[in-house]
Amino acid sequence: MMRLTRRYRFSASHRLHSGDLTADQNRDLYGKCNNPHGHGHDYILDVGVSGPLDRSTGRVVAVPSLDALVRDSVLRDLDHRNLNADAPEFAQTPATTENLAIAIRQRLLEHWPAAWPRLETVRLQETRRNRFELKV
Amino acid sequence: MMRLTRRYRFSASHRLHSGDLTADQNRDLYGKCNNPHGHGHDYILDVGVSGPLDRSTGRVVAVPSLDALVRDSVLRDLDHRNLNADAPEFAQTPATTENLAIAIRQRLLEHWPAAWPRLETVRLQETRRNRFELKV
Amino acid sequence: MMRLTRRYRFSASHRLHSGDLTADQNRDLYGKCNNPHGHGHDYILDVGVSGPLDRSTGRVVAVPSLDALVRDSVLRDLDHRNLNADAPEFAQTPATTENLAIAIRQRLLEHWPAAWPRLETVRLQETRRNRFELKV
Amino acid sequence: MMRLTRRYRFSASHRLHSGDLTADQNRDLYGKCNNPHGHGHDYILDVGVSGPLDRSTGRVVAVPSLDALVRDSVLRDLDHRNLNADAPEFAQTPATTENLAIAIRQRLLEHWPAAWPRLETVRLQETRRNRFELKV
Amino acid sequence: MMRLTRRYRFSASHRLHSGDLTADQNRDLYGKCNNPHGHGHDYILDVGVSGPLDRSTGRVVAVPSLDALVRDSVLRDLDHRNLNADAPEFAQTPATTENLAIAIRQRLLEHWPAAWPRLETVRLQETRRNRFELKV
Amino acid sequence: MMRLTRRYRFSASHRLHSGDLTADQNRDLYGKCNNPHGHGHDYILDVGVSGPLDRSTGRVVAVPSLDALVRDSVLRDLDHRNLNADAPEFAQTPATTENLAIAIRQRLLEHWPAAWPRLETVRLQETRRNRFELKV
Repeated sequence: MMRLTRRYRFSASHRLHSGDLTADQNRDLYGKCNNPHGHGHDYILDVGVSGPLDRSTGRVVAVPSLDALVRDSVLRDLDHRNLNADAPEFAQTPATTENLAIAIRQRLLEHWPAAWPRLETVRLQETRRNRFELKV
Repeated sequence: MMRLTRRYRFSASHRLHSGDLTADQNRDLYGKCNNPHGHGHDYILDVGVSGPLDRSTGRVVAVPSLDALVRDSVLRDLDHRNLNADAPEFAQTPATTENLAIAIRQRLLEHWPAAWPRLETVRLQETRRNRFELKV
Repeated sequence: MMRLTRRYRFSASHRLHSGDLTADQNRDLYGKCNNPHGHGHDYILDVGVSGPLDRSTGRVVAVPSLDALVRDSVLRDLDHRNLNADAPEFAQTPATTENLAIAIRQRLLEHWPAAWPRLETVRLQETRRNRFELKV
Repeated sequence: MMRLTRRYRFSASHRLHSGDLTADQNRDLYGKCNNPHGHGHDYILDVGVSGPLDRSTGRVVAVPSLDALVRDSVLRDLDHRNLNADAPEFAQTPATTENLAIAIRQRLLEHWPAAWPRLETVRLQETRRNRFELKV
Repeated sequence: MMRLTRRYRFSASHRLHSGDLTADQNRDLYGKCNNPHGHGHDYILDVGVSGPLDRSTGRVVAVPSLDALVRDSVLRDLDHRNLNADAPEFAQTPATTENLAIAIRQRLLEHWPAAWPRLETVRLQETRRNRFELKV
Repeated sequence: MMRLTRRYRFSASHRLHSGDLTADQNRDLYGKCNNPHGHGHDYILDVGVSGPLDRSTGRVVAVPSLDALVRDSVLRDLDHRNLNADAPEFAQTPATTENLAIAIRQRLLEHWPAAWPRLETVRLQETRRNRFELKV
């Protein structure tokens, strides 16, 4: 069993705000991340894939195919976008990096071919100090 | 003569759009950076200061004072903000990193104490691939 | 279940020396890390926290609270300090990064609120080449 | 139980080509990595070792001994070499990073002293975007 | 005046060998870089461009045009290639990073449009420890 | 003319304290860097050398010779040392990074062979946020 972790990057803006909370509670909870016009980040996405090696090719997965899947299901909609305005997942849900990781896992699983080695982890880095990881 | 380069970071969102151009020209020129709801980056700001050494302290500048000046004149207004909506410099001017570097140089010069060693360079990194530098 | 890894940094000095060993054995074992007046590093501490997501806030833990706990229980005592002279854990115990990771885990657990998601890993990087990880 | 991850680097060249495939299939599968005269990378090798702490030394493993083993069994043969021409493992097997990780695990295990804490993971980074990990 | 530094990456293999020297002299001079079958690196190329700002676009140069020029004149021929076998500049000349920087400067200047802001520096990083810079 | 910048690393401890100042002034000026038992850093030293290319070797300087000079004149005395206790330059002078850069320039110049290309810059990074550069 071999695990490949492949890295992608995208730049997006967001504003942290929860509809379940008052304006004061939002400011207390999210601090400057609640600023009304939003801000942005250069996100780093690490996709972890785990499976046996194909003996004739020496590869665990065809990387160009993986790149195409991530581009079409994740990057096309999120890169150089405003998460709150452009991604339907955040119409009602706070656009935290935790929820963004969940949305990306969902997008990947919807398009993941049954014949591929399995998607094992989704890891998303918001800034150099914060990294969120989901098992699949 | 000693040059200190001190690094600061801030996260902001922006949309590249020029009022001098048509919608089509804007899309052609700025590509996905012209997406209507904007996107964001984690900017890296390097402030270069150059001067003689103070013999008794062994320092070229008091770093806490420099930090306070950068915080009050630059970071407070730009960090976790939307450049187009929150920074008056970009009401009429495209929020490119080039113009952002010019705005930061202007903000620093307005508050720079005459007794300090001189501000020599302002360098601003938008992504890992793009770095803009201005002499002062 | 979501895992957050949050990064902290601190600068400290130390000297590797074991009271169980002779001077020669110490020099053989620790090499230049046994130099009598010590040396120092910029440590990187990654604190891993694992738990379910709070649906209304979209967060796994309140990061400002985590920062306060790490600052008060770890950084205040260790940052810009000499581990051998300033940290009671190393009065009798060699100040290796392994033992430092154990000391940090102990300090975190002593103050960890029962209501928080659980502390899962403590990872400590001494230099770019050495990283130590403890499960909790 | 403590896990040490120690980092090594080496520079090598390779050409991806499988003897099981036609020339066209090789070009389709490996793309520019199939270019006839090869290309190269600066590989990063992370060796993960896991075991209990030695109480008197405060170390999980003697790092100079680990360095000597990795140097003698891996780096001496692979650093500044052409994998296809210089490493016998790739006489018949494609020199993918997956197969390189397997070869390195095998080389380490052949020389691993029984008294040492166990070799837990071999992780090999080909470029900043691709990382392969093997459990041992 | 604004200076943009834009970063590119390519992976190539080479062997250091000078036709002016004997086999022994080559081994003495270049060490393991003279190994007969070569080795490889992930090169980092920083292209520095300096000029005035276009007021209506807020840009110093059109980055997509710059990317196309670097891709067509440099990366297409050098990325995933063997410098000695694939690049005519190194038929007679040792493929050191110094000579590679000179070759890249020449390739850029041959295609540099007269209307563009001027090419100011070519900087080439072979490994994390070695960086070579040429003024233009 | 070609400029080579070569990177070295060393780990050292220090305490910032000026004999020209009172205890209170030292605390005000240097903050936690004045803590009595000191602290430490992993310094990064970039040595910049500038000269013409040797046509037969394609090199601006023999890197192994440069490495030997830096090792013997700088690293041997400063790496894994306490600057205040082990380096004579800081017996009376505060061990700031500015003064450390001056000391390193002096050590390099004392041993710099007349036949070499000239030493152009000494750049010293204390932490990721502070970089000091001296022209020679």
